[in-house]
Amino acid sequence: MSSNSTMPAPPNPRSSIAEERANPSFPVRELTYWIDGGHRVTELKERIMLELERDPLWRVSDHPNLSLAETRERAMSKIRRLADLATSRPLEETMIRMSIISVVDPGFWTRFGVHFGLFFGALQGQATPSQMAYWMDKGALSMQGITGCFGMTELGHGSNVAGLETTATLDEKVDEFIVHSPTLTATKWWIGGAAHTATHCAVYAQLIVKGQCYGTKTFVVQLRDTKTFALMPGVNIGDLGKKMGRDQIDNGWIRFTHVRIPRSHMLMKHTKVTRSGEVIEPPLAQLAYGALIQGRVSMVSDSANVAKRALTIATRYASVRRQFGGSVSAGAAETKLIDYPIHQYRLLPLMAQTFAMIFTAREVTANYEKLMGELSDLGEAKDAAADDVIKNLKETHATSAGLKAFCTWMCLNIIDQCRQSLGGHGYSAYTGLSQAYSDFAVHCTWEGDNTILTLQCGRYLVATALDARKGQPLPENLSYLKGAVSATGGLSDRACKGDSAEQVSSLDTLKAAWSSVAANAILNAVRDFEAGLGKGLSKDDAYEFSSASRLHAARMHTYTYLLHRFAAQVDQSPTALRPVLTLLAQLFGAHSAVQHSGEFLQSGFYTGPQIETLKGFVSHACSEIRKDAVSLTDAFNYTDYVVNSPLGRFDGDVYEKYFELVTSLNPAKPVPYFDSLIRPLLERTNETEAGPELEIDEE
Amino acid sequence: MSSNSTMPAPPNPRSSIAEERANPSFPVRELTYWIDGGHRVTELKERIMLELERDPLWRVSDHPNLSLAETRERAMSKIRRLADLATSRPLEETMIRMSIISVVDPGFWTRFGVHFGLFFGALQGQATPSQMAYWMDKGALSMQGITGCFGMTELGHGSNVAGLETTATLDEKVDEFIVHSPTLTATKWWIGGAAHTATHCAVYAQLIVKGQCYGTKTFVVQLRDTKTFALMPGVNIGDLGKKMGRDQIDNGWIRFTHVRIPRSHMLMKHTKVTRSGEVIEPPLAQLAYGALIQGRVSMVSDSANVAKRALTIATRYASVRRQFGGSVSAGAAETKLIDYPIHQYRLLPLMAQTFAMIFTAREVTANYEKLMGELSDLGEAKDAAADDVIKNLKETHATSAGLKAFCTWMCLNIIDQCRQSLGGHGYSAYTGLSQAYSDFAVHCTWEGDNTILTLQCGRYLVATALDARKGQPLPENLSYLKGAVSATGGLSDRACKGDSAEQVSSLDTLKAAWSSVAANAILNAVRDFEAGLGKGLSKDDAYEFSSASRLHAARMHTYTYLLHRFAAQVDQSPTALRPVLTLLAQLFGAHSAVQHSGEFLQSGFYTGPQIETLKGFVSHACSEIRKDAVSLTDAFNYTDYVVNSPLGRFDGDVYEKYFELVTSLNPAKPVPYFDSLIRPLLERTNETEAGPELEIDEE
Repeated sequence: MSSNSTMPAPPNPRSSIAEERANPSFPVRELTYWIDGGHRVTELKERIMLELERDPLWRVSDHPNLSLAETRERAMSKIRRLADLATSRPLEETMIRMSIISVVDPGFWTRFGVHFGLFFGALQGQATPSQMAYWMDKGALSMQGITGCFGMTELGHGSNVAGLETTATLDEKVDEFIVHSPTLTATKWWIGGAAHTATHCAVYAQLIVKGQCYGTKTFVVQLRDTKTFALMPGVNIGDLGKKMGRDQIDNGWIRFTHVRIPRSHMLMKHTKVTRSGEVIEPPLAQLAYGALIQGRVSMVSDSANVAKRALTIATRYASVRRQFGGSVSAGAAETKLIDYPIHQYRLLPLMAQTFAMIFTAREVTANYEKLMGELSDLGEAKDAAADDVIKNLKETHATSAGLKAFCTWMCLNIIDQCRQSLGGHGYSAYTGLSQAYSDFAVHCTWEGDNTILTLQCGRYLVATALDARKGQPLPENLSYLKGAVSATGGLSDRACKGDSAEQVSSLDTLKAAWSSVAANAILNAVRDFEAGLGKGLSKDDAYEFSSASRLHAARMHTYTYLLHRFAAQVDQSPTALRPVLTLLAQLFGAHSAVQHSGEFLQSGFYTGPQIETLKGFVSHACSEIRKDAVSLTDAFNYTDYVVNSPLGRFDGDVYEKYFELVTSLNPAKPVPYFDSLIRPLLERTNETEAGPELEIDEE
Repeated sequence: MSSNSTMPAPPNPRSSIAEERANPSFPVRELTYWIDGGHRVTELKERIMLELERDPLWRVSDHPNLSLAETRERAMSKIRRLADLATSRPLEETMIRMSIISVVDPGFWTRFGVHFGLFFGALQGQATPSQMAYWMDKGALSMQGITGCFGMTELGHGSNVAGLETTATLDEKVDEFIVHSPTLTATKWWIGGAAHTATHCAVYAQLIVKGQCYGTKTFVVQLRDTKTFALMPGVNIGDLGKKMGRDQIDNGWIRFTHVRIPRSHMLMKHTKVTRSGEVIEPPLAQLAYGALIQGRVSMVSDSANVAKRALTIATRYASVRRQFGGSVSAGAAETKLIDYPIHQYRLLPLMAQTFAMIFTAREVTANYEKLMGELSDLGEAKDAAADDVIKNLKETHATSAGLKAFCTWMCLNIIDQCRQSLGGHGYSAYTGLSQAYSDFAVHCTWEGDNTILTLQCGRYLVATALDARKGQPLPENLSYLKGAVSATGGLSDRACKGDSAEQVSSLDTLKAAWSSVAANAILNAVRDFEAGLGKGLSKDDAYEFSSASRLHAARMHTYTYLLHRFAAQVDQSPTALRPVLTLLAQLFGAHSAVQHSGEFLQSGFYTGPQIETLKGFVSHACSEIRKDAVSLTDAFNYTDYVVNSPLGRFDGDVYEKYFELVTSLNPAKPVPYFDSLIRPLLERTNETEAGPELEIDEE
């Protein structure tokens, strides 16, 4: 086939993206305010993004080209700047700065967070007032004298904190604890900041007094001399080296060999050990839950924030990149990726998931803060008010476990789907998403391995359903179980009324659909649990026996929770935003339902034809949201500095800037091993030895 | 809670894994032979693995600690060894060596493959006999004089080869082509070997003769002087630097500015250009398909081989690692991960997927070779025999497109699921799976982006169903469409007979179930395509309109194909292996069906209660296969060198060897920036300026 012209160059990418912004269906700036929680927060974020962008310390575009040693040194060079700001500026500003940094430079965020979040957090949560005063005086908040790390996990022990092997044995004679790693598997492992940074460590160890073991408690152990950085006697530390991601933080291992610390270095807000060796245990063990929940809640926010960046890159690139289509022989431009239905189908459900996480994160953060307030007002009394708060705490604990697991999995998937949507360019280290994946992946296994968290959540759901059967009231987030748990009530009356696309896909129908399916999944988990008991298994073994359906129940509950929170935020949103947010919420609910269509068919909520109608709605919603896709990424309001990918630039000038970045970071140089390796390869001759002729072979 | 003992150390990991091998249900060595294709191949593999392990050049355990420059130089240092072996040893041995290297050192495999697979492959596929003789004489096979790269993709153009911008314009006056990159987006991009290695490039460019464009053809262009490695006039090359993975290969960009080459450097096996500028096009354009199919088929094998490694690591670690369970206060050991039903549920369906890929890869490789034989016997005649072969070729092209996409996605998921199953240790660079993920990920976007390939496959399925309606015979792999495509025949008579676990989950039932669902999915895609036509869309636009259901049809067809190939191999397997392989095939079919239960309910093959029974079967199959899990990884027969992870060691001695590896690669050193950064941080004082008091503020 011949044609009389050569290939046309792609149209100007700047105009390709500009046309996407011509006619948004909603006020973009309003949505930014709504996402951020008000224009004051938006403006504060913008100020902080600008400050970071202008400070040469915060350059991140060259990260892919740094060695491990350079990466760590670069990170350390920023600690002081941030510590000074954290202690001199208002807390809200610091929190916002950290949330931006968690997207821009997640490895550094972890390195800083180990001291301020984990080490200092352990003091806040577990030190008595006088202990707190002592450590504050030593400089534990501002890193003026102390840098801390957090010594929980061991080589042989991760999720099971109760099974840690490190011991802290009271030597009453001298009023000291002896901290010791009895075995190789007891070696503290993955300790962020241990290899290069920390002077002190909050060590989790088995408290042993007078030969009795009282379980895992926390002890502050000095690791290094603060003047010379020499290791303290009995302390051995090593470097864990290269990781999948987050190389900014120096994870290390620590072994303790009979290390002595004062008794007062055990954090005694909860359990106390007296001079005479009396162990006083606290009335409310659940109080320690709080810190766990905070970590989980923050990972829901983090999932939303990282997903915003991934979608900004993928959506903007899809609005500029052209491929196939058009009439090549006529010299027409190729078609934008975002104009392909399949590309819309790849990206826009992920956009809807991102909004679900944004709004859920905001609500669970507020709930968590309210709950912590109630908890600290509570004192140590065991009364009815305390019962309510504890109940609430348990519910939040379980829900946050499910959210942490499914949101981090969701975000990890979003990152990789967005990366794959960039085609080959997604594999470059300079387009941003390969590193984002490697950095984010740890969220799925740390602070509670996701699978274990889903099972915790599922266990709570089963237990709550069983309690409800016995007449206990249901917490609000599980009110959908009403009726389902009674002997007479069933779920059969909950079915979609009407077959039209509107009826099948309305937000109310979708909320009811998910509630129904979640209730069904919980009942199935209860059924399997009871089948286990029926086989004579112990309660714990019956829970193990039902773990697949428990995990499934947690998934269905969590998706239901996300949809309900999303819908609640839509209801409260400014009128001008409601159409687009409603459509996004519907897309979230409908796409997720199609992905799990078997559950909806089995529960009887939807019929097969209704599922087909729902699939049609998903395609329709994608094509509608496609019109606003770039404006939605604009509403996320990340500057080019934060997006940190030439393919996700606001102005669409992807090719020029990608070329510039790659060439400036990889300047032309002679091939370093031409003389040593390549020339000898090209110029070699075959050296084959046939060997001498043998006399016996002669004829 | 107190107890009178400290935590017990975990039981000896060596005995934990040894007990797993006590009583396999099948002869392990027999399975190895069956997987490899006979004991001769097994023994050859073992010899090659040993040779690689003993050659210091092939050390890979220190890869995580190499810089980009070191990584590339290390890779280059191995090229010569392998080139010498490739030219002096039998081809079969070379192929096996390469398949092992693709698991051990995938980045190097790519660097080597660019010359031998892509550059030399282009010559083989597209050069005339006299051109081939010329390039052989220049040393193109053995790299004695020439190192080649493959210049297809451009900055602005990936999957759409027809849309490439680079031009090759005939200058008849001097009998030369002028190769030129007219725009920035025409820059050749991702060219493996271009940055540091190649002297010559097989350049894809638009052939332009007398002002007419004849589409994309291939031209050999010299890039560098073979004596000095200086760039040739008009050639500019740059380094693409850091990537997500496979840093062993030096991908680069190339711009051509009016570079002149002899007319004879256009590869003219198919299209020919005469001295006078006459363009002669070939009768059978489809012949160029062959090379594409080969790449796809080899990625099915690669998916299987990499998945074997990931499962070896995850399964062996799960048999050694202990967590929770046991009675801690009684000092009992914690429970092995592999004994948890949820852990079996995480890993063993992936094991079944791996076997499905192993057997499918073997069969499609054999089919491909047969087909290529037929094709080369064909000549250029257009007769009935040619029609059959072309038909077969189209079917293989479509099926291999689907297999490439879904097997590479499946393997990528297996790697990350296995990595996550290692808990925190999966995040270490020394446990092997984080790099495996980064290296493997490129398979999903190169040699045909997966999404585009699924759509190609789906288009073929729709077209074939439409042809069958018109009375054309169905290819064997689509025989399940029989009846479904006739106006009267329906799928309603295809439903699972019987509700028992045996009836629901037998291999015959599962094969019928998948065939039925695949047929249904194809019919839905046909329906959507026709709906598009009904709306007045063009054929191409109707295909775009139906892309979501087309992709889905391709998925269902590919899973059906995998199950049928797996089952066929089970039928032919030695009797002693049949029970375990049958169970694995059932698990593959049943687990995949549960994952897509909505489709099976909608097609009417299974009822809701039957799906519940199938879920029960999946749990049951997992608990059965769990007994053989370690033996199955033993049957994969990868040596510790190939597994290359301390957590996947044959002897189970994970903790000692992991600690040894990490400490030997990261020896203790003073913190390099203590004086420059840490001391100033710890010893700093606050510098806050209140400023002078102002007179106007005085009271």
